[in-house]
Amino acid sequence: MNKEGLLFIISAPSGAGKTSLCKEVVKFFPNLYHSVSYTTRLPRPGEKDGEDYLFVSKDKFQEMIDDRSFVEWAEIHGNRYGTTIDSLKEYRHKGIDIILDIDGQGGRQLKNEYPDGIYVFILPPSRKDLEERLRLRSTDSDEDIEKRLKNAKEELQYIYQYDYIVVNNDLEEAVSALKSIIIAEKCRRDRVLPLVKGLFQLL
Amino acid sequence: MNKEGLLFIISAPSGAGKTSLCKEVVKFFPNLYHSVSYTTRLPRPGEKDGEDYLFVSKDKFQEMIDDRSFVEWAEIHGNRYGTTIDSLKEYRHKGIDIILDIDGQGGRQLKNEYPDGIYVFILPPSRKDLEERLRLRSTDSDEDIEKRLKNAKEELQYIYQYDYIVVNNDLEEAVSALKSIIIAEKCRRDRVLPLVKGLFQLL
Repeated sequence: MNKEGLLFIISAPSGAGKTSLCKEVVKFFPNLYHSVSYTTRLPRPGEKDGEDYLFVSKDKFQEMIDDRSFVEWAEIHGNRYGTTIDSLKEYRHKGIDIILDIDGQGGRQLKNEYPDGIYVFILPPSRKDLEERLRLRSTDSDEDIEKRLKNAKEELQYIYQYDYIVVNNDLEEAVSALKSIIIAEKCRRDRVLPLVKGLFQLL
Repeated sequence: MNKEGLLFIISAPSGAGKTSLCKEVVKFFPNLYHSVSYTTRLPRPGEKDGEDYLFVSKDKFQEMIDDRSFVEWAEIHGNRYGTTIDSLKEYRHKGIDIILDIDGQGGRQLKNEYPDGIYVFILPPSRKDLEERLRLRSTDSDEDIEKRLKNAKEELQYIYQYDYIVVNNDLEEAVSALKSIIIAEKCRRDRVLPLVKGLFQLL
């Protein structure tokens, strides 16, 4: 019997750097899988299907909603994003930990389904910084950037349902904080006790 | 007004390496102070007063008990060990985090007084390993070692009141786990929110 994998949920206002953070952090944990969301959004230059997102048509996404394939989905800036039930179950049952980057709406849906998940909110260090990061993504139009900044404020209302907050001031430090949260959660008493039962019998 | 420092309580069966662990981990955190306990035990070769313990006579220790100076104290293997209320209050009020290595009895007393502390239990990887470590401390007699092994079993009963368990298989890994717990606890939502209020106003 395998121990069920842990589920880490990472949310942030867009532009706070959550996807880069997740990509960095999985490099340190061979047993941690970065689950990729489905989206109806068009790929940005450099984004790869199956690696950054699973890009699907609006019709296909609607079909998946109708089939109840999603554990959470949300519409953000006119595009839809979702996580399938299957993608979570399959890995967790194999004992593989999953890290998921989704928005606050999706996080709230997941929390109902997976209250045992570990919820981490990433914050940009300041509004100025957030705006600069959005502008650096030259693919976003000014109108898009305005929408995202407005959205950031709405996103913050979800922060109260998260267990941890990481301020992404410096990528290296933020990666280290996220790594620490993962390691610490693996050391929680009720997760370690089943693994050390042998020691109790020997003593 | 300073933010109150965090309190980390580290316990373990003797010989599991909790003191070395604490000494290593404070090196990484300039704001973390390893609080030193009072004891009536005689110093082992190499131990320094004020660094490893505050060594006091049995009479002095009794006097301190009578003065209600201790937030916790315990008698182990015929020697007394205790932590003073003042040593904790002074540092925490200055916003300095404290790491404290004490036994399970002391941990239980502290938990009543400081339920907001972070309680970490260190386990040796096996009984064999524990016995070897105790024998390497050539200062302990065979009789002492037997007492300590018996005591280890009693110590384990306290494990259920601890938040985290670190198995000290390898010092470097155990230090990394303890460091991670400290960093993660500093990222807990309710500890970070007061520090990022400015961001909320700006957004």
